Amino acid sequence: MTDRIWTAALVVIGDEILSGRTHDKNIAQVAEWLQVQGIRLAEVRVVPDEEDRIVEAVNTLRERNDYLFTTGGIGPTHDDITVDAVAAALGVGVVIHPEARATLERYYTDKPGGLTEDRLRMARVPEGAELIPNRMSGAPGIRIGAIYLMAGVPHITAGMLDALTGTLEGGAPLQSETMGCWTAESEVAGLLRKVVKRNSECQIGSYPFFREGKVGANFVIRSTDASALAACAKDLREALTDAGYSPVSGGI
Amino acid sequence: MTDRIWTAALVVIGDEILSGRTHDKNIAQVAEWLQVQGIRLAEVRVVPDEEDRIVEAVNTLRERNDYLFTTGGIGPTHDDITVDAVAAALGVGVVIHPEARATLERYYTDKPGGLTEDRLRMARVPEGAELIPNRMSGAPGIRIGAIYLMAGVPHITAGMLDALTGTLEGGAPLQSETMGCWTAESEVAGLLRKVVKRNSECQIGSYPFFREGKVGANFVIRSTDASALAACAKDLREALTDAGYSPVSGGI
Repeated sequence: MTDRIWTAALVVIGDEILSGRTHDKNIAQVAEWLQVQGIRLAEVRVVPDEEDRIVEAVNTLRERNDYLFTTGGIGPTHDDITVDAVAAALGVGVVIHPEARATLERYYTDKPGGLTEDRLRMARVPEGAELIPNRMSGAPGIRIGAIYLMAGVPHITAGMLDALTGTLEGGAPLQSETMGCWTAESEVAGLLRKVVKRNSECQIGSYPFFREGKVGANFVIRSTDASALAACAKDLREALTDAGYSPVSGGI
Repeated sequence: MTDRIWTAALVVIGDEILSGRTHDKNIAQVAEWLQVQGIRLAEVRVVPDEEDRIVEAVNTLRERNDYLFTTGGIGPTHDDITVDAVAAALGVGVVIHPEARATLERYYTDKPGGLTEDRLRMARVPEGAELIPNRMSGAPGIRIGAIYLMAGVPHITAGMLDALTGTLEGGAPLQSETMGCWTAESEVAGLLRKVVKRNSECQIGSYPFFREGKVGANFVIRSTDASALAACAKDLREALTDAGYSPVSGGI
């Protein structure tokens, strides 16, 4: 275990997210998966299906982070330009990956039309790339260096993440503890500020809600250090109790 | 009506989105609302609760777009730093807005504790800002120039968007028509490419799915020109029908 913090960024590629037609589910699932790997998601950008916008996001974010993930645009149609954009960002060519070609040949062997030129597009990768297995369909994900190109369809990306589990080096996973209270967060803002100050190894997020006709807030304490986390949770629980509240462990 | 394209960017501020704890709902609702205003959402960035990261995103995106929206971080607690970050990005100070103060005074007049210092934090705005009404709670949204600071809680942001409806200048709204087919998108990729080529005023997105044990795809045609949209939809319907498919209007 090390104190080094590993970070990743995510580029979500797709006009359908920016138009509001499709509600993105990949940000949350990639974020949750990274947490378990001990990697912090540092930034997300959602960009349209335009090569120069993808290139800019990929080049900016890969320089700042240990890992870069993309979702979307790796299918066979004209609006799937992720492979070309990432190859352009890296200054490499696009090639047909022999293993991906073989997989597609097997997948389409008993299907009408066989492996057409359009289907073969799904075997195109930036030069030097490896494949990420995809059990759901014939089109694999793609890894080139520390860049991981995943599907746009969430359950296909889920399968690709599953295949990658445990293969990325990370640090101590960020652990969290949640505590809820039936109070307006403005009631306890001063109290929270003092607890934050006393517990420098933890962050505390405050998330208000309105439910059952009442206002409440959940407080999420995060730390890579389990004992600091426990001490901070104890501190917050006591401070809330002393102020006359009844904090609920696990959140409301 | 004008041919000028109006664009907006969105900065989603919040560690809770990057940790995967909270599933963002603001991207989709801001995107949908902008569509109706005739404004295109050009980019989204999700950044942590860190001032320099917020400043960077705000300054980059406001220069590139007609409008900039932020969600999150305008509440009363220590992790609510959006007002300070946006003021820093613009190089202006932070002041107590007299109208926001009066609203908070009314809101808290019959509540225990009254208007405390922590609650008064919700009246802080970048110098020169106006308020965006919020019917749900005492904390207003904030407009400064073409920058709109909205809540993180989706139903509060919904109310703020509602209050802004019709107040932003936009262009012709992007219209769309959806058509679905029970086919793997790789089957029709060549056909689609030809239809795209013949209809340069339209974009076509292809969105594959797997449902009821079968693969299918929905095609979304988008254009600001209603007659070009209708012509493209007719062209695509005929091309799919000629190829032996039964396109379903409105999508599957």
